[in-house]
Amino acid sequence: MPKPDRPQQDSASYRAKKQFFDSLLTVYGRKPVLEALRDPAVKLFRLHLAESNKPAGILDEILGIAKSQGADIQHHDRKALSRISKNSKQDQGVAADLQCKAYQSLEQFLSQPPRADFRLLALDRITNPQNLGMIIRSACAGNVDGILLPQKGGAQIDALVIKASAGTVFRAPIIHCPTLPEALAKLREAGATICALSSHARQTLGDFNPSGGSVYVLGNETEGVSTETAKHCNHQLSIPMNNGVESLNVAVTAALIAFQDAI
Amino acid sequence: MPKPDRPQQDSASYRAKKQFFDSLLTVYGRKPVLEALRDPAVKLFRLHLAESNKPAGILDEILGIAKSQGADIQHHDRKALSRISKNSKQDQGVAADLQCKAYQSLEQFLSQPPRADFRLLALDRITNPQNLGMIIRSACAGNVDGILLPQKGGAQIDALVIKASAGTVFRAPIIHCPTLPEALAKLREAGATICALSSHARQTLGDFNPSGGSVYVLGNETEGVSTETAKHCNHQLSIPMNNGVESLNVAVTAALIAFQDAI
Repeated sequence: MPKPDRPQQDSASYRAKKQFFDSLLTVYGRKPVLEALRDPAVKLFRLHLAESNKPAGILDEILGIAKSQGADIQHHDRKALSRISKNSKQDQGVAADLQCKAYQSLEQFLSQPPRADFRLLALDRITNPQNLGMIIRSACAGNVDGILLPQKGGAQIDALVIKASAGTVFRAPIIHCPTLPEALAKLREAGATICALSSHARQTLGDFNPSGGSVYVLGNETEGVSTETAKHCNHQLSIPMNNGVESLNVAVTAALIAFQDAI
Repeated sequence: MPKPDRPQQDSASYRAKKQFFDSLLTVYGRKPVLEALRDPAVKLFRLHLAESNKPAGILDEILGIAKSQGADIQHHDRKALSRISKNSKQDQGVAADLQCKAYQSLEQFLSQPPRADFRLLALDRITNPQNLGMIIRSACAGNVDGILLPQKGGAQIDALVIKASAGTVFRAPIIHCPTLPEALAKLREAGATICALSSHARQTLGDFNPSGGSVYVLGNETEGVSTETAKHCNHQLSIPMNNGVESLNVAVTAALIAFQDAI
């Protein structure tokens, strides 16, 4: 078995190291970790186990895959593991740093965008794990080049999200960033049109023909797009609705954008 | 206040009576009933209360609206109420027979279809109330002429469905039928094309241009379209998916059909 790609400790610059660690997706919990390891799109870089774990069949299975992949296996006390999983209530003594082909930072995406007229979904404080999972599933199946997922202020990838995504999280083009306003500012600098979806907008999604990259901002389930995020949007789009319906579920909106030209 | 429309007891034929009662949607539970009565699209025909109900503010509010609408108010013993609500665990001693403008039987729909090239969604054993609610919300907002909802074998309109539909249940074009195979046979007789959504189908949704009415059958979340239902389908359609994703959430599929030509 070849060893997983790792930066050369002696020669790699800080930048290269950071870029590598930025490309890792950490998941926790026994079932979610096992499910991830079974996905051929996923390579395990490092497995973290709590020293307090009692023997269990599922742990043996996880360890078996980790060893067969030549992954780094580390044991930690409970507190140290909590710092890694960032969720001591649900990590069940297991966390894994995964290399997922399509998971990257915004810097990585912008350094090599897949096409000039790229299309991104940007998530502004989506809090419901079911919605996040469904958005990821639809975006992964549809035609978007990335899902901008801020590391603060909304649901993060956990067991519920993985389940609602039908396991597509590990192959979905997820672009992580510290905060959304900051990320949108960088995308605007890079020439992208930043569109807020709003039922009041005059222009419809179907009438919008961007010339370069475009970013579709989806707001919180109850409050919509936040004031701070709205400042970075230079375009507004609506989806026409019948029968006096006022809004669509955010995961449905995401799917309509993702499949806009495919149905 | 004018009295709600009711068939003339002495002159109306059995057929007219049946048609009237077929057009009523029965909901149960205190909050769901109150929410329904607050919707201007809804007219209360008859309110059913359990004699065992203890005084409560929300019951006063429901009774107040019922009286102001001139509705029929009936009191029942607990068993009789259960027979009306068909859900004694969740009815909380309250059920309401509602006249919703867009709620009808398949016979009513077929006697006066809104257009020759009508488009219907047909639900084949959708069991998750969240999915049913989301399907209703998207279909109501999008471009379909009806949602064919069989009265057996799947989730029915309850508090969870009403919530997930964001209250659109009461204005959505819901067409009820006893069973789906029977309903599809009638629709085929009426000249409609019955399409099963299937990831294996060669023809895509976008390439399909029906000449008359069309019915899009959405299958159970886990098992897809049942064998019995599949017999009545004379067409298969797929939605093209990227990144090896095998299927879409059923509510997302419903939304893509509903908004096909609108985005």
